[in-house]
Amino acid sequence: MARPAGWCAEAVLSTFSTQRTLRFGDCDPSGIAYFPAYFDILNGVVEEFWIRVGFPWPALINTRRIGLPTARLESEFVKPSMFGDILVFAVELAHLGQSSLHLVHRITAGEELRWSAKQVVVATDLDTHRSRPWPEDIRGALGRFMENP
Amino acid sequence: MARPAGWCAEAVLSTFSTQRTLRFGDCDPSGIAYFPAYFDILNGVVEEFWIRVGFPWPALINTRRIGLPTARLESEFVKPSMFGDILVFAVELAHLGQSSLHLVHRITAGEELRWSAKQVVVATDLDTHRSRPWPEDIRGALGRFMENP
Amino acid sequence: MARPAGWCAEAVLSTFSTQRTLRFGDCDPSGIAYFPAYFDILNGVVEEFWIRVGFPWPALINTRRIGLPTARLESEFVKPSMFGDILVFAVELAHLGQSSLHLVHRITAGEELRWSAKQVVVATDLDTHRSRPWPEDIRGALGRFMENP
Amino acid sequence: MARPAGWCAEAVLSTFSTQRTLRFGDCDPSGIAYFPAYFDILNGVVEEFWIRVGFPWPALINTRRIGLPTARLESEFVKPSMFGDILVFAVELAHLGQSSLHLVHRITAGEELRWSAKQVVVATDLDTHRSRPWPEDIRGALGRFMENP
Repeated sequence: MARPAGWCAEAVLSTFSTQRTLRFGDCDPSGIAYFPAYFDILNGVVEEFWIRVGFPWPALINTRRIGLPTARLESEFVKPSMFGDILVFAVELAHLGQSSLHLVHRITAGEELRWSAKQVVVATDLDTHRSRPWPEDIRGALGRFMENP
Repeated sequence: MARPAGWCAEAVLSTFSTQRTLRFGDCDPSGIAYFPAYFDILNGVVEEFWIRVGFPWPALINTRRIGLPTARLESEFVKPSMFGDILVFAVELAHLGQSSLHLVHRITAGEELRWSAKQVVVATDLDTHRSRPWPEDIRGALGRFMENP
Repeated sequence: MARPAGWCAEAVLSTFSTQRTLRFGDCDPSGIAYFPAYFDILNGVVEEFWIRVGFPWPALINTRRIGLPTARLESEFVKPSMFGDILVFAVELAHLGQSSLHLVHRITAGEELRWSAKQVVVATDLDTHRSRPWPEDIRGALGRFMENP
Repeated sequence: MARPAGWCAEAVLSTFSTQRTLRFGDCDPSGIAYFPAYFDILNGVVEEFWIRVGFPWPALINTRRIGLPTARLESEFVKPSMFGDILVFAVELAHLGQSSLHLVHRITAGEELRWSAKQVVVATDLDTHRSRPWPEDIRGALGRFMENP
């Protein structure tokens, strides 16, 4: 379908967003966010994304024994964040594979991009820790999220 | 200089290595290493690398007000690690820039590659959090480490 | 003042409460909350308490150079919490000293007490890390919170 | 047995000790150790104590399904520790109950006591998360450690 002039890419992305305040314990003696703490926060944001998709992790992991480990992660830290900063995490579902999921994260404070990440998550069988195809119900929910987040 | 046949690349890399046992608190309810905990461990390994280079972070940060934040990080998680695994962290100093440092990390258990990472670290002025050139003494020590780790 | 029959102590305590969902990264390979993660969460709850009191930590720490380290902590872990549990943190300001603050924490899920803690926080001068009296404005705000939380 | 004059209590305690360097990521924006990070370190020290006793946690937890959660913890933080400090953790096995263990922790830097903790650990069945008596082999090893650490 032709896109109208002035079409705004941002508006049609399959994006979920949520907010976190950078806590004291997330920061380091140099006064800025400690990057491993950023990833701990990001992991919680991804958990929240899955609640939105309709599959909270506790049921996936404990009942269905499906794991969602990270297989690849590329991050760029553009500007430092300080203790107390309010960060908006925007999660875009960029690609849905047979047993994987590509997420693109953009973390901003106000108009300013602080950091970004591309993350590849793989569905695994928790008894073998090997990758497995998405079950149909989960694939369906992820597909619907991509079309209509 | 010509390299002899059978030359082993590994032997001449500017590599530092150290070992960590994966602790209970580093692992998650799916039974494997929690990836943000991996980065917390990695950061401690990089601190140890700097002690070897001759510039422990406490003096750099507290006295000289030089920060060493991570600007880019690319990681690939090849095989899961379990609680109790003994991991060897090999840190290669791959490139020394005007105000940056490229580290390549390979994390193995026995012969098995578990994960790897490329990390770009930038020297910053901790009062402005802006990048700054390496001071001569630090550049010199990093250069000597590259030649003769 | 005489208290009416049936007076409910709970209702008049100087209590602040907030909620946290126990995340994947807060739990350990045995499937329950990792106790150091509990304290990391608690510290964030105490930060939120201070926002309610009117003195967010970033200004206290960065601008006024007042630290609020923990001097004593007693905790009892009554029942385990699982990944995904919604926990209510109730913070009672139990005592206000010259340079200290006693907080009593009760953490519940539904009607069930999961854990509790008594915490003594001390105001310090961040340049010397020694205790110091509460400044008048902060003491006043804490006193008002005790009377009318 | 009568103890000789000048008997040194320290010398006969059932004590295990190990050392940790306080890392950058263990410290907070006020420049000192973040107390939840202290407990994360402490938990790793207790894991190391169990290796010394002869029962590494991975086998206990994964194979025998015995958990060792903390039921009580009392801590006193006497002096702040700074990034880079070398801390000695001394763990005393103070009491062995039917299904519990009392540990006393003293954490020093040089001659200076930095913090201390009393910790009650309970053996649990990981399928029910309820307390259970120590198995005979573990009780025996703990008893031998108390007599001859």
